[in-house]
This record gives sequence, structure tokens and C-alpha cells, in this order.
Amino acid sequence: MSTLTLNEAAGFLRQGDDFLILTHGRPDGDTVGSASALCRLLRGLGKQAFLLPNEDLTPRLGFFCQDLLAPDSFVPGAVVAVDVATRELLCKNAAPFAERVDLCIDHHPSNTGYAKNTLLEAGCAATGELIWLLGETLGYSPAPLFCDAIYTAISTDTGCFCYSNTTPQTHRIAALCMENGADFSRLNRQFFETKSWKRIQVENHVFQNIRLSAQGKIAAVCLTKEALDRLEATKDELDNLSALPRQIEGVCCSILLSQVGPGRFKGSVRTDAPVDASRLCARFGGGGHARAAGCTLEGEGEDCLSRLVKAAQEELGYV
Amino acid sequence: MSTLTLNEAAGFLRQGDDFLILTHGRPDGDTVGSASALCRLLRGLGKQAFLLPNEDLTPRLGFFCQDLLAPDSFVPGAVVAVDVATRELLCKNAAPFAERVDLCIDHHPSNTGYAKNTLLEAGCAATGELIWLLGETLGYSPAPLFCDAIYTAISTDTGCFCYSNTTPQTHRIAALCMENGADFSRLNRQFFETKSWKRIQVENHVFQNIRLSAQGKIAAVCLTKEALDRLEATKDELDNLSALPRQIEGVCCSILLSQVGPGRFKGSVRTDAPVDASRLCARFGGGGHARAAGCTLEGEGEDCLSRLVKAAQEELGYV
Repeated sequence: MSTLTLNEAAGFLRQGDDFLILTHGRPDGDTVGSASALCRLLRGLGKQAFLLPNEDLTPRLGFFCQDLLAPDSFVPGAVVAVDVATRELLCKNAAPFAERVDLCIDHHPSNTGYAKNTLLEAGCAATGELIWLLGETLGYSPAPLFCDAIYTAISTDTGCFCYSNTTPQTHRIAALCMENGADFSRLNRQFFETKSWKRIQVENHVFQNIRLSAQGKIAAVCLTKEALDRLEATKDELDNLSALPRQIEGVCCSILLSQVGPGRFKGSVRTDAPVDASRLCARFGGGGHARAAGCTLEGEGEDCLSRLVKAAQEELGYV
Repeated sequence: MSTLTLNEAAGFLRQGDDFLILTHGRPDGDTVGSASALCRLLRGLGKQAFLLPNEDLTPRLGFFCQDLLAPDSFVPGAVVAVDVATRELLCKNAAPFAERVDLCIDHHPSNTGYAKNTLLEAGCAATGELIWLLGETLGYSPAPLFCDAIYTAISTDTGCFCYSNTTPQTHRIAALCMENGADFSRLNRQFFETKSWKRIQVENHVFQNIRLSAQGKIAAVCLTKEALDRLEATKDELDNLSALPRQIEGVCCSILLSQVGPGRFKGSVRTDAPVDASRLCARFGGGGHARAAGCTLEGEGEDCLSRLVKAAQEELGYV
């Protein structure tokens, strides 16, 4: 369980061979992009390297790594996990390798150090930045498909350079990826300018049911199981819905209530300063951070929503 | 009407004083950000400099330049237009100065060369990039408010680094702005993560009325004047609606029909290769580019839409 520097991790990769690269369950652009880039980098150095097939991979991301997947017969010499913060987050296929991860490359501060060696840089917006830096350290000349994969990793983990985790280094690596052949325009269109028709229906449903109060400062919505079932949306399409009411100009307290069982609702609260989301949720036995918190309420949906909104109005001094 | 190099334009700014800076009508983040940044840069060099108040400026962008606006009594020694491609595009207040623009700094290839001197770099994603480069050339040490203004100029003109006009230089200048104090997180939230409640209503209306056909490859919608009036949306809130149907995954031909008069509709067609938008619109006497074109149709809205959709289906080989 030792922590490696960038140079030490590069040395590990230089010395090893027959690499098997693991990604996390419900894979995102960073884990798939980083894994694909690392695989291409290792092959560029003359090594044998494969990605372990991830059972959750969808076509949206799968096109990156079709030519990189390990055959059943592959016997790894070294196992590397990328962007996987804990052993439990490894994809299911990775179970046979979960206890023998030789190197984990990650940027999550919550990384538990489950691997034999860990390269962790929490200041990186994406694990993809670390793969780029490893390529530089190893003297790898970046190929276009490597650049596509790195660009995808860093752009998806920063919402196309919009989230507050973006750093000057993120932008500089994006510039280098573009100069070395990343097809950034196609990737941006795919990841940031398209939505599935069902996701659009889900967003419409959310916005149609939002109630504004406190002069537009509070936006609140309740999503019943029945309504979500009717939309036939997948997990992907229901992802990050609590960001939606927060998009409305002037809103500083957004509340999303989702039904998790009969008469049982999970509340997600997002606030701007000075409204304290964790104090609001604590009134209902919940908790979290000042800007994002959660709680569970029991009763009818509309009634739960009214109680939460009334408490929010009190926090804002409107009642 | 001479074309200046970056060094020559920097020399012009170094030699002059009492600068009045002009922006374009319906101002966007690039013209306001570039003008504000140039004003702060000139003041940083010890010059007197002001922005001409722009009658179209909304609070959304106005907060940048409240302390930079020229008093009525100001007599300019030099007039500089930023991000203004033609004399006609100058804001209305600029009429008294329209014939005496000493320097125009711009990135639009359509710039007509109306100014005495022009610094034009069509390869820049935003005029803000040119202002940054002028600052570097002049040895200006970038202040945080200058960086805020440049960051706004380049991020808004590239849709937060998403549009295909983004270049490696755009990313590198963003990195430098962040390192020199740009409050990028607040600016991103303001410009890219919030929408007015009315804009959300408009988007919902568009999505609710979209008709998909040709196995989801064609998305088409007709917006009647009556419906738009009912939404009471402003010009800002009706901006760029033809981008919406194009967001739907799988769509390669998007059609937006907007009523422009009684029984008269303007069609905006956006396509992905190989569908030729200009060929489709030419069938109705319109034209444009391969990926974006327009035409005008007469009749009832639903009937016009059906004709356009049928023609699109033919182009795609579905009829």
C-alpha cells in the first residue's frame, strides 16, 4: 500500500508488461477514456496491454475501446485500475482481480489505498490528466486516438471545462490533445450537444412540475415513482436531476424529491450561499454539506414537498 | 484602411491617449468582455480610457463595465471598435463616431475594413484572444478584472470551449486568465449553468411540439406567432432555438419553422453530413450552407411543416 510519485508510477509501467486495465462500475468518460489512453500508451511503448471488458459499458463510450478489450485467454502480468476510488467500485467483471491490483491511478481524494501502489493526485480534475502526464514522463509521442481518449476523460469530468474543478492544467492538456489530433469537435458534439429523446422527456417533466416560491428563490419539484415509470427512463436518463431546478436564474435553493418507496421520498437540496442546505435537511433528520445535502421524508409526495418548501421559506426568512 | 499586425496595433495603443471604445449592437460576451478588458489594459498603462455606453446592454453583461462608462463630457483622442465586423453593426449610440473609427480589433472574417486601421485575426475564436495578446505585447501585467473580462469574451464565444471554433490558443489563454485571478467558477455558473424561467418555458414548448420521423433522424417543429406571444419571451429568450431539435440523439436533420407573418413561416434547417441542408431548402426557393440553411414557406403552419418534412424524408431516402 505505497503511494507513488509520477516518476515512480512511470517506472512501474516501464518495467512491467502484459497489463490488464480495470475500470469502475457505471463507467463514465474519465474511467473509460483514461483506461483506453493508458492502454494505447502502453502499446505505443511496445507492451502488451488490454482493457478488462466492463459489463456496464454502453455504445456511447464503448466505441473508444472496441479494439482494446482483453480476450478471455489473457493472463495479466500486472493489473492497473484507473479512476477507481475503492475496491467496491470496480466493475463486476473485475472481481477475480480485486485483491491483486498492482497500481491504481486516481484523482479522488476518497481513494482508500486498496491497491499495492497508488498514484493519487486529487488536484487533477480528471484521472485523464495523470495519464497524459505519465505519457509525457515516459517520452510517449501522443497518437490521435490517445488524444481522443484523454480529451474525453478531462472534458466529461469537467462538464466541458465548466465545473469548478477545472484547472489551468486541464486547459493546457486539452490544448495539447487538440494539437496532437484529438477530434474535439466530434467529441464535444457527442458528449455535450446531444441528449437522448427520453432524457429530454424527463427534463421536460421536471421543469413542468417545478413550483417556484419565495419570489423565485426556491424551486421545488416532486417526482413520483409512477411518473418516472411512465417515462420509462434508464438510470443514465435519471442522472443528476437535482441540477435542473438549480439552473433557473434567481434560484438559490433547489429541492428535488424522488420517491424511493411507498410513501417514502428522498430529498436532494442544492443551495447557493448563504442558504445552508445541511441545516435545512437536518430539520428532517438528514445532513450533508452547506451547498448540497439530503434527507428522507415519509407521507404523500405533495405533502412532503410542502413541508420541505415551508422549512426552506423559513430558512430564507419568508415565513 | 490599413491592416495592422499585432505589434503595430500595440504601437498604436502605446502612442495614443483618451481612448473611446465602441461595442456592437445586441452586445454579447465577446464585445463587452473585449471592450472592458481593453479599457482596463489601457488604464493599466496609465492612459485615460472609457467605454461608450451601449443602449442595448442588459444587467447580465453590464456588471463588467459599470466603472468604465464614458461621461457625456468625454472628448476622445482615439476611437477603437472591438468585435464589430461592419460599420452598420456598431451600437446606435456610436453613430457620431461611426465615420471616425481609428482602430478596429476583430476576429470576424466578414470584417469590411471600415476603420482607418484594422487588426483582424480570423483564426481567433474570440476578439478577447486578441486583447489578451495585445496585453502581452504591451507588457501589461493582467489584473483580475481584466482576466474576468477576457475569460468571459472567450468562453461565451466558444460556448464554454465546446464549439468547433475553439483552438489550443483559446484553452491556453483561459489557463492564463485563471492563473491571474479570473473568477471562472462564478462566471461559468452565470453564463452556462443558468437559464431564465421563460427560456425554460420556451425550450419546453419547443420539445413538446417536436415531431420525430424517418426513424428518429428528422426532428421538426413549428412555432406559431400565437404560441410565442403566449410565452411572452424576449428576443434573448428566443435566441438560437434551431439548436434545440439538433440536440436529440440520432437526429441528423433538424427543422424549425417560425411564423414571421400571417400564413408565412421561416424555416431553419440544420443537418449532419451527408444530408445537405442547402439542397433541401433550395426546393423551397431558399439556400445557405450544407450544414445550415433557410427558406420561407407560405400556408398553414402544420401544412408548411409537413411539406418540409416530406422533402427531408425524400432527401434521406425514406419516401
